[in-house]
Amino acid sequence: MTPSHNSAAADRAAALVRPEIAALAGYVPGEQPQGGEWIKLNTNENPYAPSPEVAGAVTALLAGRTLAKYPDPVATRFREKAAEVFGVDPDWILCGNGSDDLLTILVRTFVGMGGALRVPTPSYILYRTLAGIQGVFCEEIPYERDWSLGSEFCTPTTAAGDPVRLAIIANPNSPSGTLIPPDAVAALAARLPCALVVDEAYGDFADANCLDLVRGSDRVIVTRSFSKSYALAGLRFGFAVAQPSVIRQLEKVKDSYNCDALSIAAATAAIGDRDWLRTNRATILATRARLTQALADLGFRVQESQANFVWCTHPTRPHRPIYEALKANRILVRFMHYAGWGDGLRITVGTDAEIDAFLTTLGGILAQA
Amino acid sequence: MTPSHNSAAADRAAALVRPEIAALAGYVPGEQPQGGEWIKLNTNENPYAPSPEVAGAVTALLAGRTLAKYPDPVATRFREKAAEVFGVDPDWILCGNGSDDLLTILVRTFVGMGGALRVPTPSYILYRTLAGIQGVFCEEIPYERDWSLGSEFCTPTTAAGDPVRLAIIANPNSPSGTLIPPDAVAALAARLPCALVVDEAYGDFADANCLDLVRGSDRVIVTRSFSKSYALAGLRFGFAVAQPSVIRQLEKVKDSYNCDALSIAAATAAIGDRDWLRTNRATILATRARLTQALADLGFRVQESQANFVWCTHPTRPHRPIYEALKANRILVRFMHYAGWGDGLRITVGTDAEIDAFLTTLGGILAQA
Repeated sequence: MTPSHNSAAADRAAALVRPEIAALAGYVPGEQPQGGEWIKLNTNENPYAPSPEVAGAVTALLAGRTLAKYPDPVATRFREKAAEVFGVDPDWILCGNGSDDLLTILVRTFVGMGGALRVPTPSYILYRTLAGIQGVFCEEIPYERDWSLGSEFCTPTTAAGDPVRLAIIANPNSPSGTLIPPDAVAALAARLPCALVVDEAYGDFADANCLDLVRGSDRVIVTRSFSKSYALAGLRFGFAVAQPSVIRQLEKVKDSYNCDALSIAAATAAIGDRDWLRTNRATILATRARLTQALADLGFRVQESQANFVWCTHPTRPHRPIYEALKANRILVRFMHYAGWGDGLRITVGTDAEIDAFLTTLGGILAQA
Repeated sequence: MTPSHNSAAADRAAALVRPEIAALAGYVPGEQPQGGEWIKLNTNENPYAPSPEVAGAVTALLAGRTLAKYPDPVATRFREKAAEVFGVDPDWILCGNGSDDLLTILVRTFVGMGGALRVPTPSYILYRTLAGIQGVFCEEIPYERDWSLGSEFCTPTTAAGDPVRLAIIANPNSPSGTLIPPDAVAALAARLPCALVVDEAYGDFADANCLDLVRGSDRVIVTRSFSKSYALAGLRFGFAVAQPSVIRQLEKVKDSYNCDALSIAAATAAIGDRDWLRTNRATILATRARLTQALADLGFRVQESQANFVWCTHPTRPHRPIYEALKANRILVRFMHYAGWGDGLRITVGTDAEIDAFLTTLGGILAQA
């Protein structure tokens, strides 16, 4: 097809869809090279293989007619196991096809036309995309200098006067790796006019989490992911913890069979292997400490991290060329730029060997004029 | 908790969410008993094990760090294989976490506030639920007596005057099992003011399909499922076929990683095994013919089916007690009731042994006074 033909087709498609969708740029996930050997330190995956229990649980489902049947729509076995681990009842848990699925469900459940979503910035950029798809306004409130959130985050309406229907914070936050302590989160929740989602995708790497707040308030919802601390990004599994009255509303919005039989079995096995989680966490935290120190030694300003990545900026060297030079050496890190705020590099905590290779290459890049 | 406490909690949660969600009853999927031995003829699953290629493809991903990495966001390997099978380019294909995920994406892409979704009735009841979640009106147009759709289906606005932004037909339809021939679908698409989704979840069991219409029109979108003809309901995988300009709009609305690595690998293996599909289809169609005849012999009015189920009504015996008596014998069929239209039984084509057991039990039930 000629370019003009393509452009006419694009115009016709744009005219058929909702104007909000036609206007959207679309969320661009981190680079996922599918071939060749890369050191991938750009999307906060766990650098180790998942619990060995996972393979056994999946293999058990491959024989016979099991996969021919629909999965359990509410993943009962997983919820029972997770409830045991976290000391809640199973009806406090909702499973999702990754925690991104749960974030979609939450925005769709709480924010209708004329309402607004409120999030901090800089943070996970998907939140804004989800508001865009829903056709609602997303108000971004800048973090304070110390990565806390002030009273501006809790006003009942946006600057334009729209009612705030849902707030989401990533805690620990990305890209900063910082944590708002649970008592400060409780204070935010108490002042907000709406429910507060605490996105704990990185919660297992932090010193504290907000699960206890859910017990005390039906306005706090915690989401968790299996992509980071369980080393199962390829599986797409996450869960939300909320009071049962809230879970019942969310269930109306989720796809009936949003989690497949293999991922339910794998996640159930993974969450049951607490020893694996403890050992993996200790390894990641030790490497994180080493990476933090080494980046500081190379002249970076490094934020103390509560997650499996480290955010750093360099006082004199521009960040994008560093990202590009690393990429030319088949090392991917995340160059993040936030309009009106600045940019920097987010480095996932890889294996010790990966971090050694990264640091050596980075040192070489910085040594160049 | 006391009931009044529960009720107060439910009221508080309902007040926090969108009023459209609070008012929704929520979609209730077909019964999925998780324990014990059942003959399941209620949710149109394939009664046979999937292609043996599936297990090998999944097993290959279980070793090492593969699952720790995010999956390919656009399932390139599957799209290349499917493109080869269907004779289109890979950029004509969008993958989904089951075809229900694709239907959600389609409704969200095309129908915004003030717009309407149009569907026939009786048909797949999820369509109405998806409109309810989106907060838009769903206009249901009754099928003609011969299961065709008249000009009423194609008017540019609803009876209330809202513009119709998307139409969906299930083809073959459920519960009827009937097919609108492709040339009649093309005529509907040409008259509609909006895009038309042809939900071909059962397309592999039919004599014809609408894939050729997609080549000729950017207003026709076909969706396919792996839950029925590929015996992979537990996997959650489906795909849409549309012109690239349309796919690009849909991609903005899908979750970045909506399909997991195991299901992409399994579906790629399954769609490549054309011999398995041909053999399975021939078996299902032979059993379907036998079931159709046997139900007629038992006094039912039976609709000729193009799907892997059969719709039947009995001229004198009420349907619900038949469903209940079968269930008491651990045989599940689907009792369907559509307000203002009537009810009947939808029987999935099981194995020959399952259908024999079903027919014997059904004969016994009918023989009782």
